[in-house]
Amino acid sequence: MKNKILKAIGALALVTSIVFQTNAQFQRGPRLVSPQINEDNSVTFRLKSLDADKVTINGSWMPGYYGKEAEVTKGDSGIWSITVKDLAPNLYTYAFLVNGIRVVDPQNPQIMGEGTYFENFVIVPGKESEVYAIQDVPHGTLSKIWYPSPTLNKTRRMSVYTPPGYENSNEKYPVLYLLHGAGGNEDSWASLGRANYILDNLIATGKAKPMIVVMTNGNSWSAAAPGETPVGENTERPGDRGMSNRNGFENSLVNDVIPFIEKNYRVLTDKNNRAIAGLSMGGMHTQTITNSNPEIFSYIGVMSAGLRNNSRFGGNNYNKEAHVKQLKALQESGVKLYWIGCGEEDTAKEINIALRKLYDEIGFGYIYRESQGGHTWANWRLYLSEMSPLLFK
Amino acid sequence: MKNKILKAIGALALVTSIVFQTNAQFQRGPRLVSPQINEDNSVTFRLKSLDADKVTINGSWMPGYYGKEAEVTKGDSGIWSITVKDLAPNLYTYAFLVNGIRVVDPQNPQIMGEGTYFENFVIVPGKESEVYAIQDVPHGTLSKIWYPSPTLNKTRRMSVYTPPGYENSNEKYPVLYLLHGAGGNEDSWASLGRANYILDNLIATGKAKPMIVVMTNGNSWSAAAPGETPVGENTERPGDRGMSNRNGFENSLVNDVIPFIEKNYRVLTDKNNRAIAGLSMGGMHTQTITNSNPEIFSYIGVMSAGLRNNSRFGGNNYNKEAHVKQLKALQESGVKLYWIGCGEEDTAKEINIALRKLYDEIGFGYIYRESQGGHTWANWRLYLSEMSPLLFK
Repeated sequence: MKNKILKAIGALALVTSIVFQTNAQFQRGPRLVSPQINEDNSVTFRLKSLDADKVTINGSWMPGYYGKEAEVTKGDSGIWSITVKDLAPNLYTYAFLVNGIRVVDPQNPQIMGEGTYFENFVIVPGKESEVYAIQDVPHGTLSKIWYPSPTLNKTRRMSVYTPPGYENSNEKYPVLYLLHGAGGNEDSWASLGRANYILDNLIATGKAKPMIVVMTNGNSWSAAAPGETPVGENTERPGDRGMSNRNGFENSLVNDVIPFIEKNYRVLTDKNNRAIAGLSMGGMHTQTITNSNPEIFSYIGVMSAGLRNNSRFGGNNYNKEAHVKQLKALQESGVKLYWIGCGEEDTAKEINIALRKLYDEIGFGYIYRESQGGHTWANWRLYLSEMSPLLFK
Repeated sequence: MKNKILKAIGALALVTSIVFQTNAQFQRGPRLVSPQINEDNSVTFRLKSLDADKVTINGSWMPGYYGKEAEVTKGDSGIWSITVKDLAPNLYTYAFLVNGIRVVDPQNPQIMGEGTYFENFVIVPGKESEVYAIQDVPHGTLSKIWYPSPTLNKTRRMSVYTPPGYENSNEKYPVLYLLHGAGGNEDSWASLGRANYILDNLIATGKAKPMIVVMTNGNSWSAAAPGETPVGENTERPGDRGMSNRNGFENSLVNDVIPFIEKNYRVLTDKNNRAIAGLSMGGMHTQTITNSNPEIFSYIGVMSAGLRNNSRFGGNNYNKEAHVKQLKALQESGVKLYWIGCGEEDTAKEINIALRKLYDEIGFGYIYRESQGGHTWANWRLYLSEMSPLLFK
């Protein structure tokens, strides 16, 4: 609370001292550090609350994560704390629950989210987590840009990452189109996915080629992320949650997004310089787009998604024969990489297995990466960091 | 809570139905609308909580705002609500307090903030508030870009707004350098200030000329906003809070930022196509920069700031004679606009009066706008919307 109020009055600038003198409750105490990464890579989380009866923490290191809580202990001066041990180097997300109410850690400005959902994060240092941190390396530019979508009859918003040096050269770059899952939007891959910083780090170390990353909004009924939609826009979802066979988003990517990017950015416009990848719903979008348009992309990534061959996954009209025919055409077009990632406990594991079974059956080549954990951003960040070095090579 | 969990599992995409079936507590009820703008422009705020003992709301329509609360009433099915009447068309910010703990409205994705401070907002429609909303007009691009600052020995981050059509033309544009206050950062003017949408609207209606807006980070000790700083960077503030006579930020704007923008963007590089404005600390920065460099800007805006002529405002070494000499040089250089804005209850009012008194005394011309209210973003958004139409004309 105190910190929030301090932030709110921070703009007072030069007159801060007056406010402090007349409002005793705003006085800043000794700086509370949270999270604190200790020498043994344990992490101490702290929250100051004189009034709370109970404080717990929900963190992505907990098996199952959502709904899991650990008790935070009250100490002197209303400072509640917990130290979490044995954390492998990674990016972890968390939030406090104060008397059952979920709040972000007011000491930690590392916040990520989408829509109205926010949580803090902390990066436990080590070789495996270096790629997620903001390193002292050249940084690309992250832009929020609006483009016309005649297909969806809207002006829509997307995020575009241009690699370091883009503004200062005449070079042309390959493009990765990177698609989010249901519940997400054009901000998700940069916020929850750390895509721009992952690419900065991989490019700086020579692991990935400099590339442009285009992060679209896959919700065909919407122009932009919640809160960024124009006044008067109907943002009610259709019943099909954009997963229908109308393929509005998929068509708009091919007919609107790619031409816009290739007209307005310095990009290489051949198949071997285009990649597409997506997670969950975006993995389904990726399949629909590449199956229907075998000539566009040489690099394809499907994360935490699978075969939509039964009614539960919108596959009422699944036609195996037509699907196989598409895959054969895609295979013949010359795919250089078909990358599949899935978590061991991923909710999409069953349909992912079905997809790979079909690919094996027809001899459709792919690389498969199985990781620990479930249907989470921890995995999608990992997949991006492992897949993007394989692109355009 | 429920909404947050729904968001968290939203990425499950196609498997949503499974989750709903196995986790009864996640089931979505009838959609709760909050805020709801009623026909008489009253606004109803709603929050669902079965467990809360007390819910209040803190909103920017309340005189004094910070620390002010109104009781929210419990109704059926754990839905708490309050209707606020007689709200003039404007953008209002608010948050709920649930058992005293400040939370954002989980139904409202319109969120703004800086650092760890977030609040919701709602725009009550009407002529006066149209400029703050996202209208169905062409939108410029908002980019987060990193640039070298030899002056501060860091690579630093800033926000750059390029107007609609920038990417599709060879036109060169004038530039407004727009500075935040203490507690803020390079994200503040776009988030809390709505600068990109204000400019979109003013440009679309022909009220403002198409321009580039450069929003820097005025905290000389920092590379970027909290949470966006590179690993290992020392982000402790110096005791002087960046307000010292060393003028690190001010020098970096002149020596690093302007040359970078003029090299990397298509901009008009003469004095009559450069403007600078800032709020609070940024208004002090603006004065320091323009007083020391009379040849750079023809358009100058000072918002909620004033004369640093006593020790309370870092003016221990105030030298009136030197100041007047600078102002005379600035006057002679040909300032086309010197715009001053201040709130009736602004904490900077006293020093603002002192500044205008000095200007009157020496015949230094300016336009003065006094608005209702205090040292708030409501005023700074208003000032930007009123000042930017006067630029470059």
